[in-house]
Amino acid sequence: MKTDWIAVDWGTSNLRAWAMGQGGILAHAASDDGMGSLDRDGFEPALLRLITPWLTADRTEVIACGMVGSRQGWFEAPYRATPCTPLDSASLVTAPSRDTRIAVRLIPGLKQAKPADVMRGEETQIAGVLALNPGFDGVICLPGTHSKWVHVSAGEVVSFQTFMTGELFALLSTQSVLRHGMTGGDWDDAAFDTALSDTLSRPERIGAKLFGLRAEGLIAGLDAGAARARLSGLLIGVELAASKPFWLGQEVAIVGSEALAKSYARALVTQGASPRLVPATDATLAGLTAARAQVTA
Amino acid sequence: MKTDWIAVDWGTSNLRAWAMGQGGILAHAASDDGMGSLDRDGFEPALLRLITPWLTADRTEVIACGMVGSRQGWFEAPYRATPCTPLDSASLVTAPSRDTRIAVRLIPGLKQAKPADVMRGEETQIAGVLALNPGFDGVICLPGTHSKWVHVSAGEVVSFQTFMTGELFALLSTQSVLRHGMTGGDWDDAAFDTALSDTLSRPERIGAKLFGLRAEGLIAGLDAGAARARLSGLLIGVELAASKPFWLGQEVAIVGSEALAKSYARALVTQGASPRLVPATDATLAGLTAARAQVTA
Repeated sequence: MKTDWIAVDWGTSNLRAWAMGQGGILAHAASDDGMGSLDRDGFEPALLRLITPWLTADRTEVIACGMVGSRQGWFEAPYRATPCTPLDSASLVTAPSRDTRIAVRLIPGLKQAKPADVMRGEETQIAGVLALNPGFDGVICLPGTHSKWVHVSAGEVVSFQTFMTGELFALLSTQSVLRHGMTGGDWDDAAFDTALSDTLSRPERIGAKLFGLRAEGLIAGLDAGAARARLSGLLIGVELAASKPFWLGQEVAIVGSEALAKSYARALVTQGASPRLVPATDATLAGLTAARAQVTA
Repeated sequence: MKTDWIAVDWGTSNLRAWAMGQGGILAHAASDDGMGSLDRDGFEPALLRLITPWLTADRTEVIACGMVGSRQGWFEAPYRATPCTPLDSASLVTAPSRDTRIAVRLIPGLKQAKPADVMRGEETQIAGVLALNPGFDGVICLPGTHSKWVHVSAGEVVSFQTFMTGELFALLSTQSVLRHGMTGGDWDDAAFDTALSDTLSRPERIGAKLFGLRAEGLIAGLDAGAARARLSGLLIGVELAASKPFWLGQEVAIVGSEALAKSYARALVTQGASPRLVPATDATLAGLTAARAQVTA
């Protein structure tokens, strides 16, 4: 079973690679050699540690997306400006490598001038959603550390907006005074729904509602599972209030299948939307495959 | 110059003490033996390290406010329930001590049942504002890690609300992805004003505006001083949007004199309010003195 090419998703914290053949995935490997833990000379060895078993004497093409193409990555793949297609074969950047068995190409991220915004990695997932859903016209939501809402029309990224929701949840639940009441207990869907509805309709309440979690823990014995669900609901509620121009009355695809994506779907359903879920890895691989097809076309 | 009594402000990070005589302050001492760094047996020695020079064979009364009275403090002084006066001599709690030269009394914090909220230390500053401004009726704003807005009428705390604004600023500027663009440069008042106005009128924008600081740093060279001022303006804007029922058309006193309090004052002035500034230490000392006067009355 010959490896035709290698697909790589290389983010800040993780590196994932797939050996791709005629029939699809032949093998998969992953490590925690994320961009954040490597210096410039560390990328090629980190990649080779994962993919050497798949290489032959011939040169194998590697196509990679994510933070690997940032200024702090292996080599900078400059942002392309929206509006534009999520991928453009002419804009792939070759990363310098010594090993003659590989040729590594990096997919550039996208930038939007006003309001200023950037993405890196999500453009590939957007291309994947379009590949998996030909003719898709609407909005793609990519929940995560930095959630993105992307308006897609006629195969182009028209505009997008990033929210720090996931990073705020992580900071508040592990680094702030709220951390004292966040461990243990069971997730509480009703608490999520109420909190979401609170900040979706009155987003300015977020600051006070946050400290309320601490106060209720101190004087009213708030359960930790309910507190976590409420924190998530409060933060996602503010995001949905601000992203309403994106999702209201639109076809919405959510990239993800884990608990977080399901929370977004649950929230949107309460607002009358009918989002479809696209598993994140499916979107990434379909996008990398689309990039590969453009190169060989 | 005999020490009549000793005033103590004991927070999470710091311990401050004043030797008080007939004419006012005789001496001042401070250390970083905050509540957060002490176990239960560490409080008395930490206090004695500071105040021993002021003690005599006679027993000296110590009156303390702040986190020293929390469950994790020297001894728990249970919250009093609002509406109530900020101080009540009958509710002072005696902290157990071995040294016969001191008698330590702790001022309890306040709690509000609905919406759930708590304060510890601020009740003393509120009493101080009332002592320094007899007959004050209106709203007291206490900016800080956990900013408080307090509605005071007829000498009582009627209601209050806490915002995590200061803690969010600290987390976002030092722990989040925004930390990359926050160091250096000069504070930019115009950037503060614009950001404040943005989220005061459209608080739901906060999530997207936050990531915008990072994106503008990456693709438009946003200056770090302007980024810091904008982050502060965005967060205070959301707080002012939510606290509008407190400050709109009210007499407002801001406890504090440092840059943060001045930022709040600047923000309120843009909204047509005319806040007065009360230096924080003046408020704390006036409050502790009022507590002492109640005890000896």
